[in-house]
Amino acid sequence: MLTVVKIGGNVIDDPQKLADFLTDFAALEGFKILVHGGGKLATRFAERLGVPVKMHEGRRITDTETLEIITMVYGGLINKQIVAQLQARDCNALGIIGADLDLILASKRPIKNGIDYGWAGDVQRVDQLAFVRLIEAGAVPVVAPITHDGQGQLLNTNSDTIASAIASALSGHFTTRLVYCFDKKGVLTHPEDENSLLPKINRALFEQYKAQGIISAGMIPKMENAFVAAERGVEKVIVTRSDALAYLDSVDNFIGTVVEW
Amino acid sequence: MLTVVKIGGNVIDDPQKLADFLTDFAALEGFKILVHGGGKLATRFAERLGVPVKMHEGRRITDTETLEIITMVYGGLINKQIVAQLQARDCNALGIIGADLDLILASKRPIKNGIDYGWAGDVQRVDQLAFVRLIEAGAVPVVAPITHDGQGQLLNTNSDTIASAIASALSGHFTTRLVYCFDKKGVLTHPEDENSLLPKINRALFEQYKAQGIISAGMIPKMENAFVAAERGVEKVIVTRSDALAYLDSVDNFIGTVVEW
Repeated sequence: MLTVVKIGGNVIDDPQKLADFLTDFAALEGFKILVHGGGKLATRFAERLGVPVKMHEGRRITDTETLEIITMVYGGLINKQIVAQLQARDCNALGIIGADLDLILASKRPIKNGIDYGWAGDVQRVDQLAFVRLIEAGAVPVVAPITHDGQGQLLNTNSDTIASAIASALSGHFTTRLVYCFDKKGVLTHPEDENSLLPKINRALFEQYKAQGIISAGMIPKMENAFVAAERGVEKVIVTRSDALAYLDSVDNFIGTVVEW
Repeated sequence: MLTVVKIGGNVIDDPQKLADFLTDFAALEGFKILVHGGGKLATRFAERLGVPVKMHEGRRITDTETLEIITMVYGGLINKQIVAQLQARDCNALGIIGADLDLILASKRPIKNGIDYGWAGDVQRVDQLAFVRLIEAGAVPVVAPITHDGQGQLLNTNSDTIASAIASALSGHFTTRLVYCFDKKGVLTHPEDENSLLPKINRALFEQYKAQGIISAGMIPKMENAFVAAERGVEKVIVTRSDALAYLDSVDNFIGTVVEW
């Protein structure tokens, strides 16, 4: 069993939440991979360095200076701090980006409708064998959301997509589950009410909620990535709260939405 | 045969020199490891972020903010840019720091004579087996000069020392050579005259040149690290210019000083 866990800014930006999460992650049984986003730290460093943050429809436009900041903050600071904290918990973490061992190859997103996202990468290939070798040798990959084009260029890549692509690629070798951790218990039919948690969701229901505006904004691409993984052979895809990882295998206390295709 | 190569700021700060060096490094036969320093980039980012650079006798005092910058710049930006460039040269680079896979364990340098170097680490142990596994699986480790204490704390560590410690640890498994690349042809008896290159140096000669002031400043700890490696079983220790790596195995065109114990 392989568990691929994705965490985002709500955990990374809060040292105590992150420490608690890493304790739960270190305790997970079986093979595992952690994929992390960046949180607000890159934006804060960009501000301190006087590099303007440019966005288009919720996605960052990655110019050369922004790519440098992302590589520093995601690939360096956050990634290596997580690695050191996992090692302190006897979890044999290895911090990587997609360029390392050529693990995740991407291509620069083409300019479309006049929008140039700059050094943004779309995943082309995950090297299943290279990941399997690392994992079976006992390493726990900690993946920062940066890829490369194979020609020497680093590329900023969405971390939800990376988690989905890794889980999909490895589902051919391991029984794989993919866990998206965020700040809610799972998919809620009433965003402000944690009691409105959906235990399961499938594509038909998702399309219906999307049309009704119940699922909106940043949740839409996350769910798209979740469905892609489920459709590509990932055994179980779960959306849950970051402090619920310890209950993943609990029959009675499980929290989260299971994504079915 | 394993070759451990160390490069410093003179290469890292010059994109063309770095590109040329990486082409030569990628072409090296046999197993290999690259250890890199940081160059002026960390200092430049510290200035832009308004973090004062504190030094004592040529060594950086690493407060918490400085450690963050070093982790970002050395462990993130420089390390991953090198990895991507090596991958573009068909060299299967894996960018790491000492915390990754617990490869290099260090301890915080104790306060001595009232001088507190902050988050500076002295190497305690290099995990020979973990390095051997990576290398024999085809990975080319690219090592940034950051270690950890096993308790979750990252530590800033001298890159010459890291190169020496890795080469020493691996000399029990591989026939190992250690190559320090810098901006001169090797050890010069007249620092301004490249024709005064010493083909060989041993400890007695080193002590003599040190007493005479011929070898001074930053060259002294570099040579100390070189002698430690030679004394601990590294087959060949070489100090050379970064553009001379291509001639390492050449009988006729070899450039550099061989360090003998």
